[in-house]
Amino acid sequence: MIKYSNGLTYKKSQTKVSSNKVAFSFSSANRGMALEEDIIQSNEYYLRNNMALIYKRPTPIQVVKVDYEKGPRITEAYFSEKSTTDFNGVYQGRYIDIEAKSTQSKTSFPLSNITKKQFEHLSNVIKLGGLAFFIVEFAKLQRTFIVEAKQVIEFKNNEERKSIPVSCFEEIGREIKRGFSPRLDYLSYVDEIHRNS
Amino acid sequence: MIKYSNGLTYKKSQTKVSSNKVAFSFSSANRGMALEEDIIQSNEYYLRNNMALIYKRPTPIQVVKVDYEKGPRITEAYFSEKSTTDFNGVYQGRYIDIEAKSTQSKTSFPLSNITKKQFEHLSNVIKLGGLAFFIVEFAKLQRTFIVEAKQVIEFKNNEERKSIPVSCFEEIGREIKRGFSPRLDYLSYVDEIHRNS
Repeated sequence: MIKYSNGLTYKKSQTKVSSNKVAFSFSSANRGMALEEDIIQSNEYYLRNNMALIYKRPTPIQVVKVDYEKGPRITEAYFSEKSTTDFNGVYQGRYIDIEAKSTQSKTSFPLSNITKKQFEHLSNVIKLGGLAFFIVEFAKLQRTFIVEAKQVIEFKNNEERKSIPVSCFEEIGREIKRGFSPRLDYLSYVDEIHRNS
Repeated sequence: MIKYSNGLTYKKSQTKVSSNKVAFSFSSANRGMALEEDIIQSNEYYLRNNMALIYKRPTPIQVVKVDYEKGPRITEAYFSEKSTTDFNGVYQGRYIDIEAKSTQSKTSFPLSNITKKQFEHLSNVIKLGGLAFFIVEFAKLQRTFIVEAKQVIEFKNNEERKSIPVSCFEEIGREIKRGFSPRLDYLSYVDEIHRNS
């Protein structure tokens, strides 16, 4: 977790959070990264306060060539497709799994952003009694929602359309208020959603 | 998980398991790798049977240079020290965290095999209500034990000596019987240890 929380990373996304202008100049990728940084910062807050231990999973890397004379030093490797989610950890003894997505759409979240493997993984987590959530950011609206993975899976299985409208997130999820620390206090909503489900 | 369960990997460690001669020709590193493969195969069995979802954490890799013209292709990267453990996942809704270690010693397991960061991580998991275990293999004895992390932490904090004798594992842990599938049925002991703790 530490390696994600260097000064630079903090500085960048604090600027972003405190200024919409800067936020709006971010590219889609950067916005996604900024969301990730906000969740990582929130997770560090949760750990400092003994509330939860939730880690960012490293991007899986396929190592092809290693030079053992220097280190060992990896000289050829590739990023491989995630078969799981962005975050997992422990909260109140329970297993919790979270996938974070940021979309540039102002109207709906395209389900094509979620891979088949991720749906399978989250279905397994739910089946085995774990807590599974999506945190979905509508970057241009500056709105971020948390929703149970099972709600997204149900939408995917039962609805015709291939994207979830913002209005639907207001029904099946909760909007996460932004703060300074934690930047995204999603755990309070995890409790609320869990109580009501 | 899939990438660990290719035919070759299976073949190798089935040979190992079925033949002591081959097992004894393995280096310490290979023994450790074989233990890891056995746990991964067992985890695949648990997932197929809807018992648990427990993943191997990828070795953290620090990416230094990426050639974006080719792929993107990572051209310089280094293995960084693990700050967490080998495995984590969900079992009966609970968070479970496991560190696997293999030692060539015939008499005791040196605590120096466990990093300070790993002790911190496991203490946090326990504090937050998660299940935390060590699976320790005495390679030359062909004996593998599962023990609660909290027992190992207590030993470290209260005992003079810097290594845990085999006899002590018989008291504070359980010996895991080897099988074909799963090769190491450690979950049955997780239940037992958890009931008694």
